[in-house]
Amino acid sequence: MAYRVLMTSERPIGRRYPKGAARRQQILDEAVEVFARAGFRSGSLREIAKRVNLTPTGVMHYFSSKEELFTEVIAERDNRVEQAAGTAEDETQPDQMRAVVAHNAANRGLSSLFTVVTAEATAPDHPAHEHFAERYRTNAAESAQALAAAQRRGLVRSDIDPAHAARLITAVMDGLQLAWLLDDTVDMPATFEEFLRGYLLPDESPDADGVAGPTTGDV
Amino acid sequence: MAYRVLMTSERPIGRRYPKGAARRQQILDEAVEVFARAGFRSGSLREIAKRVNLTPTGVMHYFSSKEELFTEVIAERDNRVEQAAGTAEDETQPDQMRAVVAHNAANRGLSSLFTVVTAEATAPDHPAHEHFAERYRTNAAESAQALAAAQRRGLVRSDIDPAHAARLITAVMDGLQLAWLLDDTVDMPATFEEFLRGYLLPDESPDADGVAGPTTGDV
Repeated sequence: MAYRVLMTSERPIGRRYPKGAARRQQILDEAVEVFARAGFRSGSLREIAKRVNLTPTGVMHYFSSKEELFTEVIAERDNRVEQAAGTAEDETQPDQMRAVVAHNAANRGLSSLFTVVTAEATAPDHPAHEHFAERYRTNAAESAQALAAAQRRGLVRSDIDPAHAARLITAVMDGLQLAWLLDDTVDMPATFEEFLRGYLLPDESPDADGVAGPTTGDV
Repeated sequence: MAYRVLMTSERPIGRRYPKGAARRQQILDEAVEVFARAGFRSGSLREIAKRVNLTPTGVMHYFSSKEELFTEVIAERDNRVEQAAGTAEDETQPDQMRAVVAHNAANRGLSSLFTVVTAEATAPDHPAHEHFAERYRTNAAESAQALAAAQRRGLVRSDIDPAHAARLITAVMDGLQLAWLLDDTVDMPATFEEFLRGYLLPDESPDADGVAGPTTGDV
């Protein structure tokens, strides 16, 4: 379960409205669609409201703040990334990472929302600050464990530091996404692949059974 | 002159007010101080205004928008990073990069401002969108050239792709900064060093004259 930052659904933050739970979910589903298609700025509350036959004020009755709405939309997006990436235990980690990057590249509006909301959440007084801080901490700890296990199986270079590598993988994903959102000539999947090849993966690709074999080159 | 994203002063965007140029510079100097000390949210326009004996409205007379003020503050910050990193031709690139990361780590408020403003500028209709897009493009192109030259001198691993590496270096800087702003247990310099060691630098450190010598190990 590595790379949770982009892949895990979280418990909603803020107050819940039990009687309106279905309505709230309907709003979130529409909000994901609106942000995915139209992006962060132009994907307005007004359009979301129209899709669920409410006023913007009516929509905000279901959330304690705009920040909560945004954070919930990101959690919804994480569910979809998780489904796209797969969670089977035998899934190799690089393939999961590649799937996350591919999903980000295919969903510009949601990537933009994620980038803006996480940046704004760096302010210590932002209502979702602790929420995102905890997600990054948990992700880093779980990824480090998964990387250490992968190292033992020969799937990850033996000389990398799992704790640093966990932070670097997320940093590359987030940083490339920022660059690509600014300049769409950035090829996120190809650049991420260079990172995997040049930093994370062993020189000799292991066999499909996950055990690195001896070098068979004859030079 | 690589890594310009964080290190280069740019021509100001928006209209200029020639008669008020000195006053404008004074405002920028104070704004850098306020943001550096108090961060993005709490470093308010009100405090900047107070420091230059103007009202907030009076301050904004010198800028076409808040976005222009923020962008100019970032350009001011770049000047300081450039001074800190040094620009001597014989300066090794890894040392320049390390200096940028160290400066970011020592100036939380300005790093937070940079993270929020670049994220918000990902929206295509943001007034500084093209400004930041151009900075990232220019930086990537110049860094790729510098990395290719460093590769020829044996200072950078021979198998890395300079164009991808240029994007990865900026991505790691930006992504680590985001993680550190959310969670101050992230050790940016140490994690960046792992990236340099594991991805960018040759296994055998070259001599100080910049020419990689033959391996002298006797195993």
